[in-house]
Amino acid sequence: MGKSQQDNRQWNGWGDREKSLALTADGASFITETLGLATPLPVATLDEVLAKVPRSRLDKSELYTCDAEVRVRHARGQSLPDWLAMKSGEFNLFPDGVAFPRSSEDIRILMAEAKEQGWQLIPYGGGTSVVGHITPTVSDKPVLTISMGKMNRLLDLDRVDQIATFGAGVKGPFLESQLQAQGFTLGHFPQSFELSTLGGWVVTRSSGQQSLGYGRIENLFAGGEIETFEGKVEIPTLPASSAGPDWRQLVLGSEGHLGILTEAKVRVSRLPEEEFFGVGFMPNWQQGIACAREAVQLGLPLSMLRVSNSIETHTQLYLSANQTQRHWLAKLLSLKGVGDDKCMLVYGITGDKKSNKQSYKRLKAVISQFNGVNTGQSLGKKWAHKRFAFPYLRETLWQMGYAIDTLETATNWSNIAPLTEKIEQSLREGLADSSESPDAPQSKVHVFSHLSHLYSDGASIYTTYLFPVSGTYEETYARWQRLKSTTSKLIVESSGTISHQHGVGGDHAAYLVREKGERVVDSLQNYFNAFDPKGQLNPGKLFKGIPAKSLQSHGKQDQ
Amino acid sequence: MGKSQQDNRQWNGWGDREKSLALTADGASFITETLGLATPLPVATLDEVLAKVPRSRLDKSELYTCDAEVRVRHARGQSLPDWLAMKSGEFNLFPDGVAFPRSSEDIRILMAEAKEQGWQLIPYGGGTSVVGHITPTVSDKPVLTISMGKMNRLLDLDRVDQIATFGAGVKGPFLESQLQAQGFTLGHFPQSFELSTLGGWVVTRSSGQQSLGYGRIENLFAGGEIETFEGKVEIPTLPASSAGPDWRQLVLGSEGHLGILTEAKVRVSRLPEEEFFGVGFMPNWQQGIACAREAVQLGLPLSMLRVSNSIETHTQLYLSANQTQRHWLAKLLSLKGVGDDKCMLVYGITGDKKSNKQSYKRLKAVISQFNGVNTGQSLGKKWAHKRFAFPYLRETLWQMGYAIDTLETATNWSNIAPLTEKIEQSLREGLADSSESPDAPQSKVHVFSHLSHLYSDGASIYTTYLFPVSGTYEETYARWQRLKSTTSKLIVESSGTISHQHGVGGDHAAYLVREKGERVVDSLQNYFNAFDPKGQLNPGKLFKGIPAKSLQSHGKQDQ
Repeated sequence: MGKSQQDNRQWNGWGDREKSLALTADGASFITETLGLATPLPVATLDEVLAKVPRSRLDKSELYTCDAEVRVRHARGQSLPDWLAMKSGEFNLFPDGVAFPRSSEDIRILMAEAKEQGWQLIPYGGGTSVVGHITPTVSDKPVLTISMGKMNRLLDLDRVDQIATFGAGVKGPFLESQLQAQGFTLGHFPQSFELSTLGGWVVTRSSGQQSLGYGRIENLFAGGEIETFEGKVEIPTLPASSAGPDWRQLVLGSEGHLGILTEAKVRVSRLPEEEFFGVGFMPNWQQGIACAREAVQLGLPLSMLRVSNSIETHTQLYLSANQTQRHWLAKLLSLKGVGDDKCMLVYGITGDKKSNKQSYKRLKAVISQFNGVNTGQSLGKKWAHKRFAFPYLRETLWQMGYAIDTLETATNWSNIAPLTEKIEQSLREGLADSSESPDAPQSKVHVFSHLSHLYSDGASIYTTYLFPVSGTYEETYARWQRLKSTTSKLIVESSGTISHQHGVGGDHAAYLVREKGERVVDSLQNYFNAFDPKGQLNPGKLFKGIPAKSLQSHGKQDQ
Repeated sequence: MGKSQQDNRQWNGWGDREKSLALTADGASFITETLGLATPLPVATLDEVLAKVPRSRLDKSELYTCDAEVRVRHARGQSLPDWLAMKSGEFNLFPDGVAFPRSSEDIRILMAEAKEQGWQLIPYGGGTSVVGHITPTVSDKPVLTISMGKMNRLLDLDRVDQIATFGAGVKGPFLESQLQAQGFTLGHFPQSFELSTLGGWVVTRSSGQQSLGYGRIENLFAGGEIETFEGKVEIPTLPASSAGPDWRQLVLGSEGHLGILTEAKVRVSRLPEEEFFGVGFMPNWQQGIACAREAVQLGLPLSMLRVSNSIETHTQLYLSANQTQRHWLAKLLSLKGVGDDKCMLVYGITGDKKSNKQSYKRLKAVISQFNGVNTGQSLGKKWAHKRFAFPYLRETLWQMGYAIDTLETATNWSNIAPLTEKIEQSLREGLADSSESPDAPQSKVHVFSHLSHLYSDGASIYTTYLFPVSGTYEETYARWQRLKSTTSKLIVESSGTISHQHGVGGDHAAYLVREKGERVVDSLQNYFNAFDPKGQLNPGKLFKGIPAKSLQSHGKQDQ
């Protein structure tokens, strides 16, 4: 049960076992030249890990399995600490059992049992969290992970209302194939699309690559059903309402604390007549930011617009093009005044052909206005082809001895350039005193960023950083922890959100108070506690520690 | 203080004393033919009302005024019960004082005093609520109304982020004039635009006529500052975040229960290059609905699209065109196959000229596809010119002996036609047994509807109803109460929201549980109670009665 289904899945890394993303020779030498040669850490085998899985604290039951391998496969997500745990084999914590419910009724039975027995429950979608959403915490009581993958059907498609009802465990590709077969699309394509689930998208407030056209999951999630400890709550699919706060907005971002979302109703769109992606190059980061801001503030109807900074552009070209290609591109661009500081722009245009033509024309005018060069669709096709492949590179780099992680935030436009600079500097210099010389391989961190989601008032910043692993897992973790905590603190102290699209989980919980304020965080935690008075639902995620019992316990000072 | 400022405002009706909207002779005879001749009720004078204002329970203070006229002028909104109270002079309840704060600091002082003294606080924006948001309730403690009108300045305009910061008491025209002087617009134009305020729009989840282009207030409200009993809470202007639930969404629709919104930051747009409104006619209501649905589901970039049903179209033409104009229009339309069931479509197109041209072309194709006729911009201009004038008709009709009220909801597309039919039937037949014959003038209600706000998954339905007043105010109120309660119950039992744009206030509080479910409503009420443990903030609005202390007190049954 559940085991065979998982067979193609990497048990200790990203994605499908049979897929990989190799580096070109150029790409590999670019990395080693940038970060120095590195020595990979030894990787534990599945058998070694299985030998360490403790006895389950759950009694045998038909409601779940206590099979050791299934427990291993559901113990961790895809954060860097998760990777270090999986690769080292030092998981430390496992769920005591994993359930694979097939219906809301199954979930109701599981929740009733959990409530009575005091079990902790962890909802599990695609296992792709990069912030520790699904990692068990230390607990006196048994921990049961509820894996939603069997609840993955299109239950209803209302072609008039354009609302589709899915089992919340449906993964991206199966969701889209079921919809597209009937002429519709959800249009939600996060990088984790191949593995992540609709329910996961909702409860973590996910955003897809084409959110500029289709909206964030907040805009797409219309309603559905959630099983709480008090029974089912139905969320009506009202197109809009002014009848007090919109409860959907408390389900979005609840990260398991309300209960388990079983059915999600989503607003779907008709399949577009035409969609294409293209690539342009801006002369530098400032012009790239300005071009993106102009396009979105003009209201150009694009479905996507991303801007890489110079280092990301440089890195991407080394990883994806050969020397001849890079040479000709540089030559072409320099003829048009775009030099070494070039910043790549990737855009998506989706809609009817005539409108697309007009949108494209307007976009090209904006690119020109900021002295950029449009290279058209050939590089765009390449991007689209690999849009979900990037996470596979983690394994390739890991095997070379490099760890890779990402940080992301969103902020207002006027803060974009300064905040990007601060984030990159914090990461780039974050390990500087960890060895004698700042140029020593031990201290090198390769950092680059892009704007991935645009809004009239700001954008998200997505920063990738690579560094060589240290001699031990403990040291490597400590290095990551230093980079992550320093930079996360900096983000929330610099008017950025701790997460634009990954959520809070365990890894970001410490930074939430700085972002939202103590009163607001306590009030939200108290809100969720009312649905879960004993703290059984995904404890340790979203919030850190126990809430103040009441707002009255705060002083009267301003924040 | 505050008195002179109010001088131009009707003290017992809508809007500016010097403005009115007269009926044409045709319009007047259409109404009397439809509803029978009616006898207006006697209207109390201001002096009569002033004589009835009880002594204030507040001590004299520089923080507020206890002037009787100011208290009268802030005692009621614009619901039909409010009108009956104002016209009869039977206000019954008045605030004990009215404060006109000039700053957040003033509000902090008022709230500290209120907290200590146990006063009830009612935030007052433009006084345009049609659901009893600002009506005092019976209270042992003094009631202080906080009128926000002096906090009306544009405090900051960030041209890069396109975020404007306003004092929350700014009214529509002053907000737009301050923005438009600098090349920007908020684009939020509810029918109450001339009088209603930004803060009111936010806390009641308002929607403007051009929400199709600019979004609802939820999309425009970026953050700001709210004064609570525990001090100021700053709401950051993050363009988007996945860091748990978005607290802005709990401010939106809070109807005063969190505290007083002092500064609101809003996402503004650049002034469009071009904007125009136009009118088309569809052969019947079904085709009108289908045309609207097609336009919005195709994603046509319109800023507005409204569809009146046949009775509304018929009524509008009688009220706004003369016989010759109606004749020629009917002749023109019938040549193109659009007859007596014609439904008027009003559209707005806003943007750059080239895109507008393309949008207009696409819209005309959709109108044709559903056998409609586009008449172009001349009637659209007329509509735009009078877009905020309709409420003035209430006074004209009142003086003829007719009461007018509106009901509005939103629902999914497949429910639009059936729900509109149910609502209209409920109102039309709602007074049928109140006199011997169903054709007796006493039982007549004239009812018509339009779709005013469109979404991919549904639309709002806005229904207007007129009926002759009865011999006394008490009887007239009873007739209204019957229509309102029967139809409101029907709406929430038929998958409609109790309000798409007016909010909950006191009048809709009883229907909220049916819409959201008991658990959700109790949880929200408990959430707000934590910010207001003694129930001093606008009590009796949004929620009805005292919440269940805890969710645990519910049974385990599903809803």
